[in-house]
Amino acid sequence: MSIRIGIMGYGNLGRGIECAIKQNQDLELAAVFTRRAPETVSVLTKGVNVYAADDILAHKDEIDVLILCGGSATDLPVQTPEYAKNFHVVDSFDTHAKIPQHFASVDASAKASGHVAVISCGWDPGMFSLNRLYAGVILPDGQDYTFWGKGVSQGHSDAIRRVEGVVDGKQYTIPIDAALEAVRSGSNPELTTRQKHLRECFVVAAEGADKAKIENDIKTMPNYFDEYDTVVHFITQEELDREHSGIPHGGFVIRSGKTGWERENTHIIEYSLKLDSNPEFTACVLVAYARAVYRLAQEGASGCKTVFDIAPAYLSPMSGEDIRAHLL
Amino acid sequence: MSIRIGIMGYGNLGRGIECAIKQNQDLELAAVFTRRAPETVSVLTKGVNVYAADDILAHKDEIDVLILCGGSATDLPVQTPEYAKNFHVVDSFDTHAKIPQHFASVDASAKASGHVAVISCGWDPGMFSLNRLYAGVILPDGQDYTFWGKGVSQGHSDAIRRVEGVVDGKQYTIPIDAALEAVRSGSNPELTTRQKHLRECFVVAAEGADKAKIENDIKTMPNYFDEYDTVVHFITQEELDREHSGIPHGGFVIRSGKTGWERENTHIIEYSLKLDSNPEFTACVLVAYARAVYRLAQEGASGCKTVFDIAPAYLSPMSGEDIRAHLL
Repeated sequence: MSIRIGIMGYGNLGRGIECAIKQNQDLELAAVFTRRAPETVSVLTKGVNVYAADDILAHKDEIDVLILCGGSATDLPVQTPEYAKNFHVVDSFDTHAKIPQHFASVDASAKASGHVAVISCGWDPGMFSLNRLYAGVILPDGQDYTFWGKGVSQGHSDAIRRVEGVVDGKQYTIPIDAALEAVRSGSNPELTTRQKHLRECFVVAAEGADKAKIENDIKTMPNYFDEYDTVVHFITQEELDREHSGIPHGGFVIRSGKTGWERENTHIIEYSLKLDSNPEFTACVLVAYARAVYRLAQEGASGCKTVFDIAPAYLSPMSGEDIRAHLL
Repeated sequence: MSIRIGIMGYGNLGRGIECAIKQNQDLELAAVFTRRAPETVSVLTKGVNVYAADDILAHKDEIDVLILCGGSATDLPVQTPEYAKNFHVVDSFDTHAKIPQHFASVDASAKASGHVAVISCGWDPGMFSLNRLYAGVILPDGQDYTFWGKGVSQGHSDAIRRVEGVVDGKQYTIPIDAALEAVRSGSNPELTTRQKHLRECFVVAAEGADKAKIENDIKTMPNYFDEYDTVVHFITQEELDREHSGIPHGGFVIRSGKTGWERENTHIIEYSLKLDSNPEFTACVLVAYARAVYRLAQEGASGCKTVFDIAPAYLSPMSGEDIRAHLL
């Protein structure tokens, strides 16, 4: 019998979940829930119904694990504790600074109702966090470096589009090779924000707009661009649509550390991702953790968990014997 | 109170354990056990005693976790199940094909006596295995590639030294860049043994030995070299000692996979290690898992585990709250 997954929210991430379920034989898509009018939402999987989010409790018995695909700013802080009252849930809450608070509220709700919740799942937070933990416990005398990109930053793209005279725009965060190489050398460099990442912007300007002013407005924007070296390219809407419609991302988690009685040996642990589609990859991670959530629930667990709390074997459809024989 | 670690076997790995314990504030070295005459073994840590392996039961109450530093060929298959009768244990058993059998024998012993054992810990098996599992569950529609090196292969170095006319020698396993790049491109190439790794040998020949014959004997040696492109350099003993006395190693675990409704997106997950000292890094992993073993034992667990069975949080000296706040 398959594990029945429900999707709450059918944007890029929700569609990614649907695609990921298709690749996992032991999972099936049970239903999609949306705040839009359900009849306006059409899903890819044949025979799967779309329901109004408000009607979800009527479908409680059809769903083993509910994956929450809303945003971290306003959706998940409300949704995850709320749905954990009635469902085992997984979310991708990624506002790093607010994770402790989100954990506490989801944990209280999930414990009270006897459900399992996994929050902050994906690649950062998620796989990058795991790699920071593993590398840190192995090389306690060392230093962590996280680089992001090359990839599209939604927040920075939105910021560009708010600049006067800008019609459309896309921003790529790009790790700087010289910084990566310095880290890989084991020299444990101190790196400034500017030394680690470059910001590259592709901008469609309104007709007659002052491009020099737009470029300056972008480059000097506080918090978003002023601490970085930023490159601005003006292109047509047609070129933006043709060349920059993807949502690639990725990055690097590197730890460099010393061992030996006199710290005489240096070691580098590096984890990297190169992703054609940020939401689809994130969805793949969420789906694997949905399997773990189901199993933990079967064992009687409850409360909020993160990737740190889940033994890797729970993520795999293979038996313990098969994992040991084929992957160890 | 610190977790008291015992070391069984004081070779390169045992010394690595000792160095790693020094870097972890919550661990202390309780005692070293050896099959050599204890008075001939001197350890680096002040105040730590060396005892005969045969006397270990007399020190049972002084040790929380015993780390077994013997070899996989003959030591560990006997030692790990034997010591699991009286101790929580960690080993680095690395004969991949015999892991299921070793697991079964250690599990039976540890369950019967109520102890926790972790086997096959280190980087391969160990961290590489974990990365194969995580990457595989995230990208089920994909392919795994493991490359080793650049690093010293003890087995191949031993094989060189058995060739007639060879006084000493060292073999490096080197991953071939073109193969790594092909994998990173996402093309999922089929790679032969010869295409993945190069073998580079540094050989000290006996005076008057037939170097052409030595080179040919090495290059055509079945199982060890005949399926590879092998480079042989003849050097002096002095140069070998000066330039090739280290034990570096490392490698790459790469998974390339597809997502999307029509498999339209490609993703690359890469984990790599660059290690100055293979035994010291392996020791660091064993020590982190010793901490996990201690905690699992405190919770009443028993039986044999692998890296797949242990939630990452058990490895860290930090509290769950701190991990979430600082690493997630």
